Amino acid sequence: LNYSAKKLLTVVCEAALESRLIKDLTLLGAKGYTITQAHGAGPRNQRNGDLEGGNIKIEIVCEEKIIELVVSSLEKDYFPNYAVSVWLSDVQVLRQDRY
Amino acid sequence: LNYSAKKLLTVVCEAALESRLIKDLTLLGAKGYTITQAHGAGPRNQRNGDLEGGNIKIEIVCEEKIIELVVSSLEKDYFPNYAVSVWLSDVQVLRQDRY
Amino acid sequence: LNYSAKKLLTVVCEAALESRLIKDLTLLGAKGYTITQAHGAGPRNQRNGDLEGGNIKIEIVCEEKIIELVVSSLEKDYFPNYAVSVWLSDVQVLRQDRY
Repeated sequence: LNYSAKKLLTVVCEAALESRLIKDLTLLGAKGYTITQAHGAGPRNQRNGDLEGGNIKIEIVCEEKIIELVVSSLEKDYFPNYAVSVWLSDVQVLRQDRY
Repeated sequence: LNYSAKKLLTVVCEAALESRLIKDLTLLGAKGYTITQAHGAGPRNQRNGDLEGGNIKIEIVCEEKIIELVVSSLEKDYFPNYAVSVWLSDVQVLRQDRY
Repeated sequence: LNYSAKKLLTVVCEAALESRLIKDLTLLGAKGYTITQAHGAGPRNQRNGDLEGGNIKIEIVCEEKIIELVVSSLEKDYFPNYAVSVWLSDVQVLRQDRY
């Protein structure tokens, strides 16, 4: 089986940011994304997701170059104003042209 | 704490495939699976999950031998006909007899 | 970009355990968590999540010291009585003070 190394970026934020974030991800080169509804709490004890449409978890699998662009955008445009959690991990994919 | 190395396989596909896929995973030796509802878009700009029951994300944690069988089945039986995203990562588990 | 290595712990269990588990995670030092609804099956062929409120998947990103405490608590207080799946992986985070 012919695997390729990619990065999986997971972003958790308020659901109200979904359309804006998807637009940004797509413009920066992400070819796809998977979104699940979530709820939770962050480090300032704020509970998110119980009100106002909840939280979303967005996952994108990309090459590192795209991830860097997305993470830079998150840092600049989202971190100052929103409770956003972001983590990155290594994954292997098949059909690497999809990512 | 007594960890064992396993593989986590994540499969994102249309929800209509759930029962067929679970049957295949189980026959191939996966002892368990976790499914969450999802929506998203893939590399051909198709939006999935907004219609027709949405997408699902299926996660299985297995030893590599089972993963190979599952991935081969996905390649042969699902990739030609369905929009399926698959990624693989390394995880550590406790109670390795569960996987 | 300034990444820090952390651990991602994923716990899948029955939804009825949510409030108890969150209380324990928080007491043990986890600063945040993300919860998604799930369903699935485990190694004893039990199907969970179709009845009684379903399953939940809880994800926490922490430093290894906290993860060890949480996993020890799971082993002692949850594994003997509940169907709980747990896996651990390596992630990179930004803004490490959040974790």
